[in-house]
Amino acid sequence: MVMLKVVTKILEANDRIALENRRLFDKAGVFVINLMSAPGAGKTSLLEKTLEQRTGLRIGVIEGDIAGTDDAERIERLGAPAVQINTGGACHLDANMIYEVLGDMDLAALDILFIENVGNLVCPAEFKVGEDIKVMLLSITEGHDKPLKYPLMFQESGALVLNKTDLVPYTNVDMAKIRRDALSLNPGLKIFEVSCRTGEGIEEWVSWLREVSKKA
Amino acid sequence: MVMLKVVTKILEANDRIALENRRLFDKAGVFVINLMSAPGAGKTSLLEKTLEQRTGLRIGVIEGDIAGTDDAERIERLGAPAVQINTGGACHLDANMIYEVLGDMDLAALDILFIENVGNLVCPAEFKVGEDIKVMLLSITEGHDKPLKYPLMFQESGALVLNKTDLVPYTNVDMAKIRRDALSLNPGLKIFEVSCRTGEGIEEWVSWLREVSKKA
Repeated sequence: MVMLKVVTKILEANDRIALENRRLFDKAGVFVINLMSAPGAGKTSLLEKTLEQRTGLRIGVIEGDIAGTDDAERIERLGAPAVQINTGGACHLDANMIYEVLGDMDLAALDILFIENVGNLVCPAEFKVGEDIKVMLLSITEGHDKPLKYPLMFQESGALVLNKTDLVPYTNVDMAKIRRDALSLNPGLKIFEVSCRTGEGIEEWVSWLREVSKKA
Repeated sequence: MVMLKVVTKILEANDRIALENRRLFDKAGVFVINLMSAPGAGKTSLLEKTLEQRTGLRIGVIEGDIAGTDDAERIERLGAPAVQINTGGACHLDANMIYEVLGDMDLAALDILFIENVGNLVCPAEFKVGEDIKVMLLSITEGHDKPLKYPLMFQESGALVLNKTDLVPYTNVDMAKIRRDALSLNPGLKIFEVSCRTGEGIEEWVSWLREVSKKA
């Protein structure tokens, strides 16, 4: 019970800072996407493919990782501004980590800011960072049992991107079950199927990005 | 700083209960493996393949999941005793969750107890549950950047099982880099390559299990 109280207080404090981030994002007119997935589902690859599309959208990225700067370097190589956060031991980004780096980004110069969360299907879904929308990425190699095993993330997300569809023929994955279970948890979920390796499905994803970010 | 103190206290309390679990495992003469991986790397599939080998080893399993009982059912279908823990929101198993279910298992009737942790590459590595050894599973579809991005789990584990090797030809994964980086973090790490889909490499894994569990 004591533990529960501590966690509740941490979430309350987090939500207050998330609101402040939200205020700064609104002022700058930037649409903010909290991108979440398990490790290795392809979050950075999706951002690379998105940047390669020359969308005309001005995109910036905040990269969250336990350790290392690989992901920010991959984004900068494509000419987009990127800031790396190393969480040390923490398994998710929180609102304060984001608040602390916002001074390093020219928010008003962006149409979309992606916040790439730490690879983890659990805790990132609990911590708001001030985003407009949460987008979840699932590699189809993780299997069709994921929606029912990690329900919160599917419930909290506005869109689900199923990645690595080029590997479907070499696995036993039941794509219809993923869709069925994900929609049973969250009937409004928008679902995309992409392969960041072959580029299939990326155009539809980018069209959607263009639509939703207009609302900022 | 306050947060850090809270976390330290939680870990200290956890380690005390882990020692008590350890005492019960030693008394029963059972070898305990804390099995960890990202979501969908194939922990339950590895256990299924291990059980199918008719090793002569008496194996029991504690299944940890946020939600659902699928994994325990998969194990029981193969005739092994299994207990399911649902952590609710928690992203890892802790020593107390294990302690609470030990009364439901006949430990003295087992040679090996697998504790299948929640799918997560971060927090499970921080919480001892009283195990003899930590074993980490990595699906090669997660990519070769994982050791340097999630170093603690590679450092804490005694063995690393690289799964889904049947998919290597269809990906860009650099298997040599995984080995190199994992060994740079943990030079004593024992590494296996398996495919739970084709069964390749399972025999070598089972031989090793037979060896290490003798020391219990």
